[in-house]
Amino acid sequence: MSKNTKVNAAILIIGNEILSGRTQDTNTSTLAIWLNSIGVKVNEVRVVPDEEKIIVNTLNLLRKNCNYVFTTGGIGPTHDDITARSVSKAFNRKYEIHKEAFKILESYYKPGEFNEGRQKMVWMPKDAELILNPTSGAPGFKVENVFCLPGVPSILKSMLGGLKNKIVGGEPILSQTISLKTVESEIANSLSIVQEKNKDVEIGSYPFFHAGKLGVSIVIRSEKQSKIDQCNSQILKFVDKMKIEVVKR
Amino acid sequence: MSKNTKVNAAILIIGNEILSGRTQDTNTSTLAIWLNSIGVKVNEVRVVPDEEKIIVNTLNLLRKNCNYVFTTGGIGPTHDDITARSVSKAFNRKYEIHKEAFKILESYYKPGEFNEGRQKMVWMPKDAELILNPTSGAPGFKVENVFCLPGVPSILKSMLGGLKNKIVGGEPILSQTISLKTVESEIANSLSIVQEKNKDVEIGSYPFFHAGKLGVSIVIRSEKQSKIDQCNSQILKFVDKMKIEVVKR
Repeated sequence: MSKNTKVNAAILIIGNEILSGRTQDTNTSTLAIWLNSIGVKVNEVRVVPDEEKIIVNTLNLLRKNCNYVFTTGGIGPTHDDITARSVSKAFNRKYEIHKEAFKILESYYKPGEFNEGRQKMVWMPKDAELILNPTSGAPGFKVENVFCLPGVPSILKSMLGGLKNKIVGGEPILSQTISLKTVESEIANSLSIVQEKNKDVEIGSYPFFHAGKLGVSIVIRSEKQSKIDQCNSQILKFVDKMKIEVVKR
Repeated sequence: MSKNTKVNAAILIIGNEILSGRTQDTNTSTLAIWLNSIGVKVNEVRVVPDEEKIIVNTLNLLRKNCNYVFTTGGIGPTHDDITARSVSKAFNRKYEIHKEAFKILESYYKPGEFNEGRQKMVWMPKDAELILNPTSGAPGFKVENVFCLPGVPSILKSMLGGLKNKIVGGEPILSQTISLKTVESEIANSLSIVQEKNKDVEIGSYPFFHAGKLGVSIVIRSEKQSKIDQCNSQILKFVDKMKIEVVKR
Protein backbone atom coordinates (compact mmCIF):
# COMPACT_ATOMS: atom_id res chain seq x y z
CA MET A 1 0.00 0.00 0.00
CA SER A 2 1.15 3.48 -0.77
CA LYS A 3 1.92 5.37 2.43
CA ASN A 4 3.82 8.27 0.99
CA THR A 5 1.06 10.26 -0.63
CA LYS A 6 1.01 13.49 1.26
CA VAL A 7 -2.15 15.12 0.01
CA ASN A 8 -5.46 13.40 0.60
CA ALA A 9 -9.15 14.07 0.40
CA ALA A 10 -12.51 12.71 1.49
CA ILE A 11 -15.69 12.81 -0.55
CA LEU A 12 -18.99 13.38 1.22
CA ILE A 13 -21.99 12.50 -0.92
CA ILE A 14 -25.12 14.14 0.50
CA GLY A 15 -28.46 12.79 -0.57
CA ASN A 16 -31.30 10.43 0.28
CA GLU A 17 -31.55 9.51 -3.40
CA ILE A 18 -28.18 7.73 -3.27
CA LEU A 19 -29.03 5.87 -0.04
CA SER A 20 -32.38 4.74 -1.45
CA GLY A 21 -30.67 3.39 -4.56
CA ARG A 22 -32.82 5.58 -6.82
CA THR A 23 -29.78 7.44 -8.10
CA GLN A 24 -26.47 5.82 -8.90
CA ASP A 25 -23.61 8.00 -7.71
CA THR A 26 -21.11 8.77 -10.46
CA ASN A 27 -19.51 11.82 -8.86
CA THR A 28 -17.12 9.75 -6.73
CA SER A 29 -15.45 8.34 -9.79
CA THR A 30 -15.34 11.73 -11.57
CA LEU A 31 -13.84 13.46 -8.55
CA ALA A 32 -11.39 10.66 -7.73
CA ILE A 33 -9.94 10.48 -11.24
CA TRP A 34 -9.60 14.24 -11.41
CA LEU A 35 -8.06 14.45 -7.92
CA ASN A 36 -5.55 11.70 -8.71
CA SER A 37 -4.48 13.64 -11.79
CA ILE A 38 -3.56 16.64 -9.62
CA GLY A 39 -1.84 14.52 -6.95
CA VAL A 40 -4.63 14.17 -4.38
CA LYS A 41 -5.55 10.71 -3.14
CA VAL A 42 -9.08 9.93 -2.00
CA ASN A 43 -8.90 8.29 1.43
CA GLU A 44 -12.57 7.69 2.02
CA VAL A 45 -16.05 8.32 0.72
CA ARG A 46 -19.19 8.62 2.80
CA VAL A 47 -22.78 8.84 1.71
CA VAL A 48 -25.12 10.48 4.22
CA PRO A 49 -28.80 11.44 4.21
CA ASP A 50 -30.25 14.95 3.98
CA GLU A 51 -30.12 15.40 7.76
CA GLU A 52 -28.40 18.41 9.20
CA LYS A 53 -26.96 16.84 12.33
CA ILE A 54 -25.40 13.98 10.42
CA ILE A 55 -23.95 16.28 7.76
CA VAL A 56 -22.48 18.62 10.39
CA ASN A 57 -20.90 15.83 12.43
CA THR A 58 -19.53 13.96 9.45
CA LEU A 59 -18.11 17.10 7.88
CA ASN A 60 -16.43 18.17 11.10
CA LEU A 61 -14.75 14.80 11.35
CA LEU A 62 -13.64 14.59 7.73
CA ARG A 63 -12.32 18.13 7.49
CA LYS A 64 -10.03 17.49 10.42
CA ASN A 65 -8.79 14.14 9.10
CA CYS A 66 -8.14 15.12 5.49
CA ASN A 67 -6.42 17.88 3.57
CA TYR A 68 -9.52 18.47 1.48
CA VAL A 69 -13.19 17.52 1.62
CA PHE A 70 -15.48 17.60 -1.38
CA THR A 71 -19.21 17.50 -0.80
CA THR A 72 -21.68 16.82 -3.58
CA GLY A 73 -25.39 17.50 -3.55
CA GLY A 74 -27.84 19.55 -1.56
CA ILE A 75 -27.07 23.03 -2.89
CA GLY A 76 -30.21 23.52 -4.99
CA PRO A 77 -33.32 25.56 -4.21
CA THR A 78 -35.63 22.97 -2.59
CA HIS A 79 -36.37 22.08 1.04
CA ASP A 80 -34.12 19.01 0.91
CA ASP A 81 -31.10 21.11 -0.11
CA ILE A 82 -29.51 21.76 3.26
CA THR A 83 -25.79 21.58 2.53
CA ALA A 84 -25.03 25.32 2.76
CA ARG A 85 -26.91 25.67 6.05
CA SER A 86 -25.19 22.56 7.44
CA VAL A 87 -21.73 23.75 6.42
CA SER A 88 -22.44 27.09 8.11
CA LYS A 89 -23.24 25.23 11.33
CA ALA A 90 -20.19 22.98 11.01
CA PHE A 91 -17.91 26.01 10.74
CA ASN A 92 -19.93 28.07 13.19
CA ARG A 93 -20.41 30.78 10.59
CA LYS A 94 -23.47 32.86 9.89
CA TYR A 95 -25.73 31.51 7.14
CA GLU A 96 -26.43 34.57 5.01
CA ILE A 97 -26.89 35.98 1.52
CA HIS A 98 -23.63 35.94 -0.40
CA LYS A 99 -23.56 39.28 -2.22
CA GLU A 100 -21.38 38.17 -5.12
CA ALA A 101 -23.49 35.04 -5.67
CA PHE A 102 -26.61 37.20 -5.55
CA LYS A 103 -25.23 39.46 -8.30
CA ILE A 104 -24.25 36.47 -10.44
CA LEU A 105 -27.70 34.90 -10.29
CA GLU A 106 -29.52 38.20 -10.59
CA SER A 107 -27.83 38.83 -13.92
CA TYR A 108 -28.02 35.14 -14.97
CA TYR A 109 -31.83 35.08 -14.87
CA LYS A 110 -34.20 37.21 -16.92
CA PRO A 111 -35.73 40.19 -15.05
CA GLY A 112 -38.37 38.92 -12.62
CA GLU A 113 -37.16 35.31 -12.76
CA PHE A 114 -34.78 35.51 -9.81
CA ASN A 115 -37.53 34.42 -7.46
CA GLU A 116 -37.52 33.39 -3.80
CA GLY A 117 -36.78 29.72 -4.62
CA ARG A 118 -33.73 30.67 -6.65
CA GLN A 119 -32.58 33.18 -4.05
CA LYS A 120 -32.17 30.29 -1.62
CA MET A 121 -29.15 29.25 -3.68
CA VAL A 122 -27.22 32.39 -2.68
CA TRP A 123 -27.51 31.69 1.05
CA MET A 124 -24.11 30.45 2.14
CA PRO A 125 -21.74 30.40 5.11
CA LYS A 126 -20.36 33.89 5.79
CA ASP A 127 -17.23 34.68 3.75
CA ALA A 128 -17.50 31.56 1.63
CA GLU A 129 -15.41 31.65 -1.53
CA LEU A 130 -17.45 31.02 -4.68
CA ILE A 131 -16.84 28.14 -7.08
CA LEU A 132 -18.12 29.33 -10.43
CA ASN A 133 -20.64 27.28 -12.37
CA PRO A 134 -20.36 27.67 -16.14
CA THR A 135 -23.36 25.39 -16.77
CA SER A 136 -26.30 26.63 -14.77
CA GLY A 137 -25.29 29.81 -12.96
CA ALA A 138 -25.67 28.83 -9.30
CA PRO A 139 -22.18 28.71 -7.82
CA GLY A 140 -20.73 26.18 -5.42
CA PHE A 141 -18.60 27.42 -2.56
CA LYS A 142 -15.50 26.76 -0.53
CA VAL A 143 -14.97 27.27 3.20
CA GLU A 144 -11.42 26.59 4.39
CA ASN A 145 -10.60 23.09 3.07
CA VAL A 146 -14.19 22.13 2.22
CA PHE A 147 -15.47 22.40 -1.36
CA CYS A 148 -19.24 22.20 -1.88
CA LEU A 149 -20.31 21.06 -5.32
CA PRO A 150 -23.68 20.22 -6.83
CA GLY A 151 -25.03 16.69 -7.20
CA VAL A 152 -25.92 16.83 -10.89
CA PRO A 153 -22.95 15.10 -12.55
CA SER A 154 -22.75 17.25 -15.69
CA ILE A 155 -22.77 20.47 -13.65
CA LEU A 156 -20.22 19.13 -11.19
CA LYS A 157 -17.90 18.18 -14.05
CA SER A 158 -18.14 21.64 -15.57
CA MET A 159 -16.99 23.23 -12.30
CA LEU A 160 -13.79 21.24 -11.77
CA GLY A 161 -11.71 23.32 -14.17
CA GLY A 162 -12.21 26.37 -11.98
CA LEU A 163 -11.01 24.54 -8.88
CA LYS A 164 -7.52 23.63 -9.94
CA ASN A 165 -5.82 26.76 -8.60
CA LYS A 166 -7.52 26.35 -5.22
CA ILE A 167 -5.93 22.95 -4.57
CA VAL A 168 -2.31 22.17 -3.87
CA GLY A 169 -1.75 18.55 -4.77
CA GLY A 170 1.26 16.30 -4.53
CA GLU A 171 2.78 14.27 -7.32
CA PRO A 172 0.06 13.04 -9.70
CA ILE A 173 -0.82 9.43 -8.98
CA LEU A 174 0.09 7.37 -12.02
CA SER A 175 -1.34 4.00 -12.89
CA GLN A 176 -0.78 1.21 -15.35
CA THR A 177 -3.06 -1.70 -16.12
CA ILE A 178 -2.03 -5.14 -17.35
CA SER A 179 -4.93 -7.27 -18.53
CA LEU A 180 -4.43 -11.01 -18.64
CA LYS A 181 -6.36 -13.97 -20.00
CA THR A 182 -6.36 -15.88 -16.74
CA VAL A 183 -8.24 -16.12 -13.46
CA GLU A 184 -7.19 -14.47 -10.21
CA SER A 185 -6.42 -17.70 -8.40
CA GLU A 186 -3.80 -18.67 -11.01
CA ILE A 187 -1.72 -15.57 -10.41
CA ALA A 188 -2.54 -14.86 -6.76
CA ASN A 189 0.70 -16.24 -5.34
CA SER A 190 3.02 -14.72 -7.91
CA LEU A 191 1.31 -11.37 -7.56
CA SER A 192 1.62 -11.49 -3.76
CA ILE A 193 5.37 -11.88 -4.16
CA VAL A 194 5.56 -8.77 -6.38
CA GLN A 195 3.48 -6.82 -3.84
CA GLU A 196 5.73 -8.00 -1.01
CA LYS A 197 8.81 -6.79 -2.91
CA ASN A 198 7.19 -3.41 -3.66
CA LYS A 199 5.37 -2.44 -0.51
CA ASP A 200 5.09 1.24 -1.38
CA VAL A 201 3.26 0.52 -4.63
CA GLU A 202 -0.48 -0.19 -4.71
CA ILE A 203 -1.18 -3.33 -6.74
CA GLY A 204 -4.80 -4.30 -7.28
CA SER A 205 -6.24 -7.34 -9.01
CA TYR A 206 -9.70 -7.17 -10.62
CA PRO A 207 -11.49 -9.92 -12.50
CA PHE A 208 -13.32 -8.79 -15.62
CA PHE A 209 -16.06 -10.24 -17.79
CA HIS A 210 -16.13 -8.05 -20.85
CA ALA A 211 -17.32 -8.62 -24.39
CA GLY A 212 -17.30 -12.36 -23.84
CA LYS A 213 -13.77 -12.29 -22.50
CA LEU A 214 -12.93 -13.42 -19.01
CA GLY A 215 -9.75 -12.19 -17.45
CA VAL A 216 -7.94 -10.26 -14.76
CA SER A 217 -6.76 -6.65 -14.80
CA ILE A 218 -3.79 -5.88 -12.63
CA VAL A 219 -3.59 -2.21 -11.72
CA ILE A 220 -0.30 -0.73 -10.51
CA ARG A 221 -0.50 2.71 -8.86
CA SER A 222 2.27 4.96 -7.62
CA GLU A 223 3.51 8.54 -7.88
CA LYS A 224 6.77 7.23 -9.38
CA GLN A 225 6.83 5.95 -12.95
CA SER A 226 10.06 4.06 -12.20
CA LYS A 227 8.31 2.04 -9.48
CA ILE A 228 5.41 1.24 -11.80
CA ASP A 229 7.89 0.12 -14.47
CA GLN A 230 9.67 -2.08 -11.95
CA CYS A 231 6.46 -3.83 -10.89
CA ASN A 232 5.33 -4.07 -14.48
CA SER A 233 8.47 -5.94 -15.49
CA GLN A 234 8.29 -8.25 -12.44
CA ILE A 235 4.69 -9.07 -13.31
CA LEU A 236 5.38 -9.61 -17.00
CA LYS A 237 8.22 -11.92 -16.00
CA PHE A 238 5.96 -14.39 -14.16
CA VAL A 239 3.21 -13.94 -16.75
CA ASP A 240 5.64 -14.94 -19.48
CA LYS A 241 6.97 -17.86 -17.45
CA MET A 242 3.41 -19.15 -16.83
CA LYS A 243 2.55 -18.66 -20.52
CA ILE A 244 -0.40 -16.41 -19.71
CA GLU A 245 -1.68 -14.29 -22.58
CA VAL A 246 -1.66 -10.48 -22.18
CA VAL A 247 -4.84 -9.04 -23.66
CA LYS A 248 -5.89 -5.62 -24.87
CA ARG A 249 -9.15 -4.29 -23.43
CA MET B 1 -37.62 12.95 7.28
CA SER B 2 -38.79 9.49 8.11
CA LYS B 3 -37.92 8.65 11.70
CA ASN B 4 -40.06 5.61 12.21
CA THR B 5 -38.18 3.07 10.15
CA LYS B 6 -37.05 0.53 12.65
CA VAL B 7 -34.65 -1.61 10.68
CA ASN B 8 -31.57 -0.02 9.18
CA ALA B 9 -28.32 -1.00 7.52
CA ALA B 10 -24.94 0.37 6.53
CA ILE B 11 -23.03 -0.55 3.40
CA LEU B 12 -19.25 -0.81 3.55
CA ILE B 13 -17.62 -0.81 0.14
CA ILE B 14 -14.09 -2.17 0.40
CA GLY B 15 -11.67 -1.46 -2.41
CA ASN B 16 -8.95 0.84 -3.67
CA GLU B 17 -10.47 0.60 -7.16
CA ILE B 18 -13.51 2.59 -6.05
CA LEU B 19 -11.44 5.24 -4.26
CA SER B 20 -9.18 5.68 -7.29
CA GLY B 21 -12.20 6.15 -9.53
CA ARG B 22 -11.15 3.26 -11.77
CA THR B 23 -14.31 1.33 -10.92
CA GLN B 24 -17.72 2.87 -10.59
CA ASP B 25 -19.58 1.36 -7.65
CA THR B 26 -22.98 -0.01 -8.60
CA ASN B 27 -23.45 -2.33 -5.62
CA THR B 28 -24.77 0.45 -3.36
CA SER B 29 -27.74 1.01 -5.59
CA THR B 30 -28.39 -2.73 -6.05
CA LEU B 31 -28.25 -3.39 -2.31
CA ALA B 32 -30.27 -0.30 -1.34
CA ILE B 33 -33.14 -1.06 -3.71
CA TRP B 34 -33.25 -4.66 -2.57
CA LEU B 35 -33.03 -3.73 1.12
CA ASN B 36 -35.82 -1.15 0.77
CA SER B 37 -38.01 -3.84 -0.76
CA ILE B 38 -37.63 -5.98 2.37
CA GLY B 39 -38.11 -3.06 4.78
CA VAL B 40 -34.51 -2.16 5.57
CA LYS B 41 -33.38 1.42 5.18
CA VAL B 42 -29.77 2.25 4.32
CA ASN B 43 -28.49 4.84 6.79
CA GLU B 44 -25.01 5.31 5.45
CA VAL B 45 -22.45 4.09 2.97
CA ARG B 46 -18.71 4.19 3.39
CA VAL B 47 -15.99 3.40 0.91
CA VAL B 48 -12.66 2.40 2.45
CA PRO B 49 -9.32 1.22 1.05
CA ASP B 50 -7.89 -2.30 1.25
CA GLU B 51 -6.26 -1.60 4.62
CA GLU B 52 -6.91 -3.94 7.51
CA LYS B 53 -6.89 -1.42 10.33
CA ILE B 54 -9.35 0.88 8.56
CA ILE B 55 -11.67 -2.00 7.67
CA VAL B 56 -11.62 -3.35 11.24
CA ASN B 57 -12.30 0.03 12.86
CA THR B 58 -15.02 1.03 10.41
CA LEU B 59 -16.75 -2.31 10.67
CA ASN B 60 -16.71 -2.27 14.46
CA LEU B 61 -18.34 1.13 14.42
CA LEU B 62 -20.98 0.35 11.82
CA ARG B 63 -22.02 -3.00 13.25
CA LYS B 64 -22.79 -1.36 16.57
CA ASN B 65 -24.73 1.53 15.02
CA CYS B 66 -26.85 -0.42 12.56
CA ASN B 67 -29.05 -3.49 12.53
CA TYR B 68 -27.18 -4.90 9.54
CA VAL B 69 -23.93 -4.22 7.74
CA PHE B 70 -23.24 -5.34 4.19
CA THR B 71 -19.67 -5.36 2.97
CA THR B 72 -18.79 -5.68 -0.69
CA GLY B 73 -15.42 -6.60 -2.15
CA GLY B 74 -12.19 -8.14 -0.96
CA ILE B 75 -13.23 -11.80 -0.71
CA GLY B 76 -11.36 -13.11 -3.75
CA PRO B 77 -8.08 -15.04 -3.90
CA THR B 78 -5.49 -12.27 -4.34
CA HIS B 79 -3.24 -10.40 -1.89
CA ASP B 80 -5.54 -7.34 -1.87
CA ASP B 81 -8.52 -9.44 -0.76
CA ILE B 82 -8.38 -8.96 2.99
CA THR B 83 -12.02 -8.71 3.99
CA ALA B 84 -12.33 -12.15 5.64
CA ARG B 85 -9.15 -11.66 7.64
CA SER B 86 -10.26 -8.17 8.68
CA VAL B 87 -13.72 -9.35 9.73
CA SER B 88 -12.09 -12.08 11.84
CA LYS B 89 -10.05 -9.42 13.64
CA ALA B 90 -13.07 -7.15 14.08
CA PHE B 91 -14.99 -9.97 15.79
CA ASN B 92 -11.94 -11.33 17.54
CA ARG B 93 -12.50 -14.71 15.94
CA LYS B 94 -9.94 -17.14 14.59
CA TYR B 95 -9.26 -16.81 10.85
CA GLU B 96 -9.39 -20.40 9.64
CA ILE B 97 -10.44 -22.81 6.92
CA HIS B 98 -14.23 -23.11 6.75
CA LYS B 99 -14.85 -26.82 6.24
CA GLU B 100 -18.18 -26.48 4.43
CA ALA B 101 -16.79 -23.81 2.10
CA PHE B 102 -13.79 -26.06 1.43
CA LYS B 103 -16.10 -28.91 0.41
CA ILE B 104 -18.17 -26.63 -1.82
CA LEU B 105 -15.16 -25.32 -3.72
CA GLU B 106 -13.42 -28.70 -3.83
CA SER B 107 -16.39 -30.16 -5.69
CA TYR B 108 -16.95 -26.98 -7.74
CA TYR B 109 -13.53 -27.16 -9.39
CA LYS B 110 -12.16 -29.97 -11.57
CA PRO B 111 -9.77 -32.34 -9.78
CA GLY B 112 -6.42 -30.63 -9.30
CA GLU B 113 -7.81 -27.15 -9.95
CA PHE B 114 -8.59 -26.29 -6.34
CA ASN B 115 -5.16 -24.74 -5.92
CA GLU B 116 -3.58 -22.69 -3.14
CA GLY B 117 -4.88 -19.41 -4.58
CA ARG B 118 -8.44 -20.68 -4.64
CA GLN B 119 -8.11 -22.20 -1.18
CA LYS B 120 -7.56 -18.70 0.19
CA MET B 121 -11.26 -18.10 -0.47
CA VAL B 122 -12.32 -20.66 2.16
CA TRP B 123 -10.42 -18.92 4.96
CA MET B 124 -13.05 -17.18 7.06
CA PRO B 125 -13.83 -16.06 10.61
CA LYS B 126 -14.49 -19.11 12.84
CA ASP B 127 -18.14 -20.23 12.78
CA ALA B 128 -19.07 -17.89 9.93
CA GLU B 129 -22.35 -18.78 8.23
CA LEU B 130 -22.00 -19.24 4.48
CA ILE B 131 -23.84 -17.18 1.88
CA LEU B 132 -24.14 -19.37 -1.17
CA ASN B 133 -22.91 -18.17 -4.53
CA PRO B 134 -24.85 -19.64 -7.47
CA THR B 135 -22.65 -17.87 -10.03
CA SER B 136 -19.04 -18.68 -9.33
CA GLY B 137 -18.85 -21.08 -6.41
CA ALA B 138 -16.94 -19.12 -3.78
CA PRO B 139 -19.39 -18.31 -0.97
CA GLY B 140 -19.76 -15.09 0.95
CA PHE B 141 -20.28 -15.28 4.68
CA LYS B 142 -22.17 -13.82 7.60
CA VAL B 143 -20.94 -13.17 11.14
CA GLU B 144 -23.60 -11.91 13.53
CA ASN B 145 -25.17 -8.90 11.76
CA VAL B 146 -22.43 -8.51 9.14
CA PHE B 147 -22.89 -9.91 5.62
CA CYS B 148 -19.80 -10.14 3.43
CA LEU B 149 -20.48 -10.15 -0.28
CA PRO B 150 -18.24 -10.04 -3.33
CA GLY B 151 -17.45 -6.89 -5.28
CA VAL B 152 -18.31 -8.18 -8.77
CA PRO B 153 -21.84 -6.79 -9.31
CA SER B 154 -23.28 -9.75 -11.24
CA ILE B 155 -22.09 -12.22 -8.59
CA LEU B 156 -23.36 -10.04 -5.74
CA LYS B 157 -26.78 -9.80 -7.39
CA SER B 158 -27.00 -13.57 -7.76
CA MET B 159 -26.43 -14.02 -4.02
CA LEU B 160 -29.17 -11.75 -2.72
CA GLY B 161 -31.97 -14.29 -3.19
CA GLY B 162 -30.32 -16.60 -0.66
CA LEU B 163 -30.12 -13.85 1.95
CA LYS B 164 -33.76 -13.03 2.37
CA ASN B 165 -34.44 -15.52 5.18
CA LYS B 166 -31.43 -14.24 7.15
CA ILE B 167 -32.78 -10.70 7.40
CA VAL B 168 -35.73 -9.49 9.41
CA GLY B 169 -36.92 -6.26 7.86
CA GLY B 170 -39.68 -3.83 8.73
CA GLU B 171 -42.42 -2.60 6.47
CA PRO B 172 -41.17 -2.33 2.89
CA ILE B 173 -40.31 1.27 2.03
CA LEU B 174 -42.64 2.39 -0.73
CA SER B 175 -42.02 5.24 -3.10
CA GLN B 176 -43.79 7.22 -5.75
CA THR B 177 -42.34 9.60 -8.29
CA ILE B 178 -44.07 12.60 -9.87
CA SER B 179 -42.17 14.07 -12.81
CA LEU B 180 -42.93 17.64 -13.77
CA LYS B 181 -42.05 19.91 -16.66
CA THR B 182 -40.72 22.69 -14.48
CA VAL B 183 -37.59 23.75 -12.64
CA GLU B 184 -36.94 23.22 -8.94
CA SER B 185 -37.05 26.90 -8.01
CA GLU B 186 -40.63 27.23 -9.33
CA ILE B 187 -41.97 24.60 -6.96
CA ALA B 188 -39.56 24.95 -4.05
CA ASN B 189 -41.90 26.94 -1.79
CA SER B 190 -45.01 24.88 -2.46
CA LEU B 191 -43.08 21.67 -1.96
CA SER B 192 -41.66 22.92 1.35
CA ILE B 193 -45.19 23.44 2.59
CA VAL B 194 -46.13 19.85 1.72
CA GLN B 195 -42.99 18.58 3.49
CA GLU B 196 -43.83 20.72 6.56
CA LYS B 197 -47.32 19.21 6.68
CA ASN B 198 -45.98 15.66 6.34
CA LYS B 199 -42.86 15.53 8.46
CA ASP B 200 -42.76 11.74 8.69
CA VAL B 201 -42.64 11.34 4.91
CA GLU B 202 -39.43 11.72 2.94
CA ILE B 203 -39.92 14.05 0.00
CA GLY B 204 -37.01 14.56 -2.39
CA SER B 205 -36.72 16.83 -5.40
CA TYR B 206 -34.38 15.94 -8.25
CA PRO B 207 -33.82 17.89 -11.47
CA PHE B 208 -33.51 15.75 -14.59
CA PHE B 209 -32.15 16.28 -18.07
CA HIS B 210 -33.32 13.30 -20.03
CA ALA B 211 -33.91 12.72 -23.74
CA GLY B 212 -33.95 16.45 -24.38
CA LYS B 213 -36.47 17.03 -21.60
CA LEU B 214 -35.71 19.20 -18.62
CA GLY B 215 -37.77 18.72 -15.51
CA VAL B 216 -38.01 17.79 -11.85
CA SER B 217 -38.82 14.44 -10.30
CA ILE B 218 -40.42 14.56 -6.89
CA VAL B 219 -39.93 11.35 -4.96
CA ILE B 220 -42.20 10.53 -2.02
CA ARG B 221 -41.04 7.74 0.29
CA SER B 222 -42.79 6.15 3.26
CA GLU B 223 -43.77 2.75 4.64
CA LYS B 224 -47.42 3.78 4.46
CA GLN B 225 -49.18 3.97 1.10
CA SER B 226 -51.84 6.21 2.63
CA LYS B 227 -49.22 8.82 3.53
CA ILE B 228 -47.74 8.67 0.06
CA ASP B 229 -51.21 9.14 -1.41
CA GLN B 230 -51.84 12.11 0.85
CA CYS B 231 -48.62 13.87 -0.21
CA ASN B 232 -49.25 12.95 -3.81
CA SER B 233 -52.63 14.66 -3.81
CA GLN B 234 -51.26 17.74 -2.02
CA ILE B 235 -48.50 18.02 -4.60
CA LEU B 236 -50.82 17.49 -7.56
CA LYS B 237 -53.07 20.20 -6.14
CA PHE B 238 -50.42 22.93 -6.32
CA VAL B 239 -49.10 21.53 -9.60
CA ASP B 240 -52.57 21.86 -11.10
CA LYS B 241 -53.05 25.34 -9.68
CA MET B 242 -49.69 26.47 -11.11
CA LYS B 243 -50.56 24.88 -14.48
CA ILE B 244 -47.39 22.75 -14.43
CA GLU B 245 -47.38 19.78 -16.82
CA VAL B 246 -46.96 16.29 -15.34
CA VAL B 247 -44.68 14.25 -17.60
CA LYS B 248 -44.06 10.55 -18.08
CA ARG B 249 -40.42 9.49 -17.94
